[in-house]
Amino acid sequence: MTDTSNQMWGGRFADGPDAIMEAINASIGFDQRLARQDIDGSRAHAQMLGDTGILSGSDAKAIREGLLTVLSEIEGGTFQFSTALEDIHMNVEARLRELIGEPAGRLHTGRSRNDQVALDFRMWVRDQCDAATQGITALMHALLAQAEAGADWVMPGFTHLQTAQPVTWGHHMMAYVEMLSRDRARFGDARRRMNLSPLGAAALAGTSFPIDRHATAKALGFDAPAANSLDAVADRDFALEFLAASSITAMHLSRFAEELVIWSSAQFRFVTLSDRFSTGSSIMPQKKNPDAAELIRAKIGRILGANVALLTVMKGLPLTYSKDMQEDKEQTFDAADALMLSLAAMTGMVSDMNANQDALRAAAASGFSTATDLADWLVRVLGLPFREAHHITGRLVALAEAENCDLPDLTLDQMRSVHDGITESVYDVLTVEASVASRTSYGGTAPSEVRKQIAAWKDRL
Amino acid sequence: MTDTSNQMWGGRFADGPDAIMEAINASIGFDQRLARQDIDGSRAHAQMLGDTGILSGSDAKAIREGLLTVLSEIEGGTFQFSTALEDIHMNVEARLRELIGEPAGRLHTGRSRNDQVALDFRMWVRDQCDAATQGITALMHALLAQAEAGADWVMPGFTHLQTAQPVTWGHHMMAYVEMLSRDRARFGDARRRMNLSPLGAAALAGTSFPIDRHATAKALGFDAPAANSLDAVADRDFALEFLAASSITAMHLSRFAEELVIWSSAQFRFVTLSDRFSTGSSIMPQKKNPDAAELIRAKIGRILGANVALLTVMKGLPLTYSKDMQEDKEQTFDAADALMLSLAAMTGMVSDMNANQDALRAAAASGFSTATDLADWLVRVLGLPFREAHHITGRLVALAEAENCDLPDLTLDQMRSVHDGITESVYDVLTVEASVASRTSYGGTAPSEVRKQIAAWKDRL
Amino acid sequence: MTDTSNQMWGGRFADGPDAIMEAINASIGFDQRLARQDIDGSRAHAQMLGDTGILSGSDAKAIREGLLTVLSEIEGGTFQFSTALEDIHMNVEARLRELIGEPAGRLHTGRSRNDQVALDFRMWVRDQCDAATQGITALMHALLAQAEAGADWVMPGFTHLQTAQPVTWGHHMMAYVEMLSRDRARFGDARRRMNLSPLGAAALAGTSFPIDRHATAKALGFDAPAANSLDAVADRDFALEFLAASSITAMHLSRFAEELVIWSSAQFRFVTLSDRFSTGSSIMPQKKNPDAAELIRAKIGRILGANVALLTVMKGLPLTYSKDMQEDKEQTFDAADALMLSLAAMTGMVSDMNANQDALRAAAASGFSTATDLADWLVRVLGLPFREAHHITGRLVALAEAENCDLPDLTLDQMRSVHDGITESVYDVLTVEASVASRTSYGGTAPSEVRKQIAAWKDRL
Amino acid sequence: MTDTSNQMWGGRFADGPDAIMEAINASIGFDQRLARQDIDGSRAHAQMLGDTGILSGSDAKAIREGLLTVLSEIEGGTFQFSTALEDIHMNVEARLRELIGEPAGRLHTGRSRNDQVALDFRMWVRDQCDAATQGITALMHALLAQAEAGADWVMPGFTHLQTAQPVTWGHHMMAYVEMLSRDRARFGDARRRMNLSPLGAAALAGTSFPIDRHATAKALGFDAPAANSLDAVADRDFALEFLAASSITAMHLSRFAEELVIWSSAQFRFVTLSDRFSTGSSIMPQKKNPDAAELIRAKIGRILGANVALLTVMKGLPLTYSKDMQEDKEQTFDAADALMLSLAAMTGMVSDMNANQDALRAAAASGFSTATDLADWLVRVLGLPFREAHHITGRLVALAEAENCDLPDLTLDQMRSVHDGITESVYDVLTVEASVASRTSYGGTAPSEVRKQIAAWKDRL
Repeated sequence: MTDTSNQMWGGRFADGPDAIMEAINASIGFDQRLARQDIDGSRAHAQMLGDTGILSGSDAKAIREGLLTVLSEIEGGTFQFSTALEDIHMNVEARLRELIGEPAGRLHTGRSRNDQVALDFRMWVRDQCDAATQGITALMHALLAQAEAGADWVMPGFTHLQTAQPVTWGHHMMAYVEMLSRDRARFGDARRRMNLSPLGAAALAGTSFPIDRHATAKALGFDAPAANSLDAVADRDFALEFLAASSITAMHLSRFAEELVIWSSAQFRFVTLSDRFSTGSSIMPQKKNPDAAELIRAKIGRILGANVALLTVMKGLPLTYSKDMQEDKEQTFDAADALMLSLAAMTGMVSDMNANQDALRAAAASGFSTATDLADWLVRVLGLPFREAHHITGRLVALAEAENCDLPDLTLDQMRSVHDGITESVYDVLTVEASVASRTSYGGTAPSEVRKQIAAWKDRL
Repeated sequence: MTDTSNQMWGGRFADGPDAIMEAINASIGFDQRLARQDIDGSRAHAQMLGDTGILSGSDAKAIREGLLTVLSEIEGGTFQFSTALEDIHMNVEARLRELIGEPAGRLHTGRSRNDQVALDFRMWVRDQCDAATQGITALMHALLAQAEAGADWVMPGFTHLQTAQPVTWGHHMMAYVEMLSRDRARFGDARRRMNLSPLGAAALAGTSFPIDRHATAKALGFDAPAANSLDAVADRDFALEFLAASSITAMHLSRFAEELVIWSSAQFRFVTLSDRFSTGSSIMPQKKNPDAAELIRAKIGRILGANVALLTVMKGLPLTYSKDMQEDKEQTFDAADALMLSLAAMTGMVSDMNANQDALRAAAASGFSTATDLADWLVRVLGLPFREAHHITGRLVALAEAENCDLPDLTLDQMRSVHDGITESVYDVLTVEASVASRTSYGGTAPSEVRKQIAAWKDRL
Repeated sequence: MTDTSNQMWGGRFADGPDAIMEAINASIGFDQRLARQDIDGSRAHAQMLGDTGILSGSDAKAIREGLLTVLSEIEGGTFQFSTALEDIHMNVEARLRELIGEPAGRLHTGRSRNDQVALDFRMWVRDQCDAATQGITALMHALLAQAEAGADWVMPGFTHLQTAQPVTWGHHMMAYVEMLSRDRARFGDARRRMNLSPLGAAALAGTSFPIDRHATAKALGFDAPAANSLDAVADRDFALEFLAASSITAMHLSRFAEELVIWSSAQFRFVTLSDRFSTGSSIMPQKKNPDAAELIRAKIGRILGANVALLTVMKGLPLTYSKDMQEDKEQTFDAADALMLSLAAMTGMVSDMNANQDALRAAAASGFSTATDLADWLVRVLGLPFREAHHITGRLVALAEAENCDLPDLTLDQMRSVHDGITESVYDVLTVEASVASRTSYGGTAPSEVRKQIAAWKDRL
Repeated sequence: MTDTSNQMWGGRFADGPDAIMEAINASIGFDQRLARQDIDGSRAHAQMLGDTGILSGSDAKAIREGLLTVLSEIEGGTFQFSTALEDIHMNVEARLRELIGEPAGRLHTGRSRNDQVALDFRMWVRDQCDAATQGITALMHALLAQAEAGADWVMPGFTHLQTAQPVTWGHHMMAYVEMLSRDRARFGDARRRMNLSPLGAAALAGTSFPIDRHATAKALGFDAPAANSLDAVADRDFALEFLAASSITAMHLSRFAEELVIWSSAQFRFVTLSDRFSTGSSIMPQKKNPDAAELIRAKIGRILGANVALLTVMKGLPLTYSKDMQEDKEQTFDAADALMLSLAAMTGMVSDMNANQDALRAAAASGFSTATDLADWLVRVLGLPFREAHHITGRLVALAEAENCDLPDLTLDQMRSVHDGITESVYDVLTVEASVASRTSYGGTAPSEVRKQIAAWKDRL
């Protein structure tokens, strides 16, 4: 342990931590990602200390300018990070002292590492909420473009991965637009909720210096200062809310990714992914693998894992700060990176992918997919109770299966052998195009309805 | 398999499921909790079918009245649930048919089990958001009462479970009020986001019947119908958002519960829990165990487990409904029950508990807890840079430790042996009362500040 | 609170717990599943107390016989469980006292609820290890039967859900036999590791009564008594190991279930599931849904959730028993039930399912699946380095794709246009049958190899 | 995309992946940790290819020597890793080609990246099982040393963090020895179960080259080759079993860490941690924080998170390899690092820590900790049923509480006022030393018993 870190801990310790302790304790390996937030926060703090007269104007100015120099060194890649200095905060401060001397020691007046780290991390997570919002919006645009192109392409609507009813490509794309819009709103709510400044909570109890927390909050883009200093340094629920929103988004992405993997199979051939988002095999030259889709599908593991990790860490910690909470950052960093990368990759894939309209329509038309339309016809035209109509339709499907044909291929006589009220007009509802066109209930799959939703979303985005 | 369920599935199946299939498939064992929601939804659907002329007025009326009878049977405990009928929806419908005959078969016009179950479950989760909001508010009231009583009781503020600085009991209680207020807001946001009606999405594609989804949405208290029928039946993110909010709340509760367990120990004696929320031992008669606190601490396991479970279930499911999604309910039911019980038990414990003021003050005054005040005095009065003041304070603490006394017990000469600028006035900041009173920064622990926060919250709640 | 429970807790408590406390505290709602284990344990304890002279022979006999009566009442469904008596242990003991009077009060000599519950739960989990072993073995038999029937049926071997190389149905089935054999071994290891008796650890410190822990351990089928009484009552790692093994097994089952869902789709048609393990739709009469496969796929959520829940509960608990640990049972019960049901349902599905050999072979023969065989031929016959052979094969695949044909359909001239060393004999390796037959490396897909593995497993099971 | 990677994927792709794809797809950023395993595996494969005549002896020799050069470059830090080459396998092979030319292209004969990565990762995890075993053993030694020193130091045995009965320091330390011994055994079982070689499974189906998988398995320290090539490349249960064992170990460590945090508090003062494993505060000079203990307590989050992550990734993946599985490594690397660091830090802390015997004994003697001994005396000497003895003891505790004294301080008359059969000899069992000495049941806390367990473990380790 060097003299430098002895200065940090004060005179109490006879021994320094040994190598194991340094390895488990130091955070500079990852928290250097907070450099910009740390320096922004310190500059706002220095400005306020100067404005309130706690520091002299010249000290405050020296600190603020020195911090800019440190930032430029870090962003320029010339900064030397030291593990002995443990974390980003001490690394920055030590360099500041080298640059400006004694005033550097006054920067820490009226604050502590506890509120400093809470501030830095909160600002970082806030930025990620914005990044997620942007990433999701980009993906929504890509989906809207697909939806618009194929608002009336017919494809199978699946339940249980079994063909259920014909739907449209546009309708399917718009389902993800809806899911993503809720995901986006969650990041918005999380951002708004976390947007209170912990700076000035000091170690935990506030401070006797006449600081102006409202000023620093405003300077850093917060709505207000956090109202309880213990809470400000002790909680990490803002990161957990970000992780929860990320987990749900990742779940939605995993579903679409699964569909893309299945749709890319030789058996489905519903879509062709671009070469840009596929890879080959080292031993099987013919392979074109949907790697990006698979990796996106997998990312929920990592993101959910981070969510579980941080909740488990926070479980049962007495107030206020415990060192356990140092585990908050790597998990959140990793999950945020995975989310942003997934969104970007999915946006690229969706933009590039080609739907195979013929394959989609052929699949939609097989498997008795208009059986519900037939049942509905029996209700609407013959006035049967739905349950009876359903039963009759079941028998007609069984008949078609036995005849090895599809529903529209049954003759009227065959139909009448099951129910003698059936008339010629039943054939009008048995095509997939008729089926989708008829589903004009609000939010239904009829191209007319889908186009309304597309238009509404184009306005909103 | 009985004839009854054969009627449900239509004529296609030669065999019924055997016992294993029935065991893994049936949901009536748990989804009967959705009875009220199911009947409310069906009644609104029937009303709309009548109003739009899809059903005759008399059929609609018969259905609505029959459903009320079914509800009264269920709530009265006389309803016979049947596993062969699989789920709550078919149980209700089968009984309706017994009661009113043929019109019962018309109820399912223009909807499907897919939107029906999505509707019922969404309404149930919506109710739980309200219940959580109420439960949290009650706990906030209990904490406010504790805070008001002890706004100036001094206690140790801990970091790392080490005494850091003196704080006030009221300040500590209010920290949880802040956390819980964010938890409450999360349930509010979740409720608002989920408050769109899936009814009328039918199986997945919408319907060709001229239904009025806006009418049913309004009748059931929704803001609007869900805008995409595929999304409406395929997603469960509303339950996941509820579980995420519950997990974070449970984390907050686990922290307070941990504190109560530690504070109840013979070594701390900070609080005395009431007999009503403690239990005895079968073999150790002297024990008074904080069982309720321990159980609350543990509930995060169950709630986080449910969150993980449902996210894992939903991972990678292609649209729209897959039977996997039947796993949504038990997890959410169990987590909601655990949360509401935890909130009620915590509210009771907090209302009943007695803080031991003497023990709190004595603990606050030990462990050199005013060292920061000393350091701040060195900065403020002697004009030292904080880092140097910190170092000097460290040496004074070491001296006091060597002398086996506390900081105020050092003589002025002893103090001056470390830094000769120290004057008599330093003793003014070394009492715990002076320490807390001085921390008047916004959100700080000074009783004056704490009382402001209490007053503000009393207005808001 | 009734007098009965006052007797249980002794005279210290003025108040009883109120309704909330009873709701959060009582475990009889679920731990009555431990009735048999509880009574077996108590009978062994009573026998030992009699044999060592701690109790009189007549008391021991009365207790043992009384307990048999209680067991028969419970198993006969006539036992009245009381929530006021909290748990199964007190319910049994209270009833024993009614039956035999004063000697019942002597049963608790030299033990405590802490070791009693640890014992009961450990025996229950031990039984579940046996049940899992049996369930897995049954499924392995079903898979072996499928493998034997189709040891030489050709199907596509997939990577990334893209056809990679032809493999055999038998080989694919045997892959799951291997996975399951490791799962089975995990339960065996867990059982062996947990098979130490906690009985006689008493509350936590052991006892001053001259009990014979080896005798009770032996009577209850344990290998030995647990060697540290604190550990014996404080740990639940045996349940966690069971849950971990269950999670991994559920993961394997989820993979096979996913395959069955995909294979049952209209696009794949690789298998036909029996009606017994499928269900219909309420609105789409033609549907035949692989519900059992979907539910099995989903069960990993619940089991992993339980695993996470219990690990989270146990995190950071100081020794020895804390009430948090009461959360161990419901999670483990639920996960065990889900696992056993999944195994049974999967065994039924596998036994019933029919592979569609034609569809399998056709899929195997498409997509240039023998490209690797072509590359290997270039290495083996022409002596090219593998990487060069791989590159040439890639160009031949591109040529076939451009010609819209498969590899064996290319003329020799076309082949020679890419590499002029290619000879007629290359066509020998381009059929799927030749491909699979050639892969005779140990563990390879050649029917000859697969049959060896089947034979070996039939011997072992 | 560069020519280099075009060579890897063959001629099929018109476009290369763009930057997003490279970012999400490349693994070289983390899988370079497998360099040694990769080269060991390739050298064994080359040796076997030479020995079986598949390669010429000179090619095999050139490859083996070239690989040694590559390894020395990597270990010497001079190797240039390339992201365009995606992963460690292609990086090594590309460098080998530079070094030895054309024979490098023959190394991939009879294998694929699928079995190569499965091999490398499996060997890495196998090494970590050994590292965990060593780390746990070291910690067990440290605990044994503490146990031996304090085999008869009396301390409170807690349940619910309430003093229950006196136990010994040695007994408490040995409880963790027992837990850790099971953890160690889990890593041993996992290692044994995973010790089968996937090499030669090739892409998934085996190979037509006459490779000798038994030879490579033996050369690489495996017990045998894996018996099914699909399973060999498709499963990652070996990593999951490692993560499960790590999670349970981390849970045990979190419990001890929690105790150390609580024991280090000013209120408990049971132990003094060394400066080497503590840190100071930036603002509170008097603080000595148990940071290492807190960080160890937190690591379960990260390890459980990794466990959840990988199980979630693997859920529902069809056979065989999917790109999702690339997520296996970072999670496992991170969890393994966290575990090994936790074990090392805990070993250091335990070795260094000092138990405060006086504080331990004083705590043990308070809180009516010998109440059970009193109850047992009533049973043993007066022949009361345990339940009655328990009730009388409760009344005596209430009396002592009312008198504000401890149990041994009650006069005989006071005792007799509760039960007139009590005699002078009762005082013999009311000291903590008498209490612990009396608990001589197998595994009990009596120093004589504890010393037997220590001796047995010293023999075994």
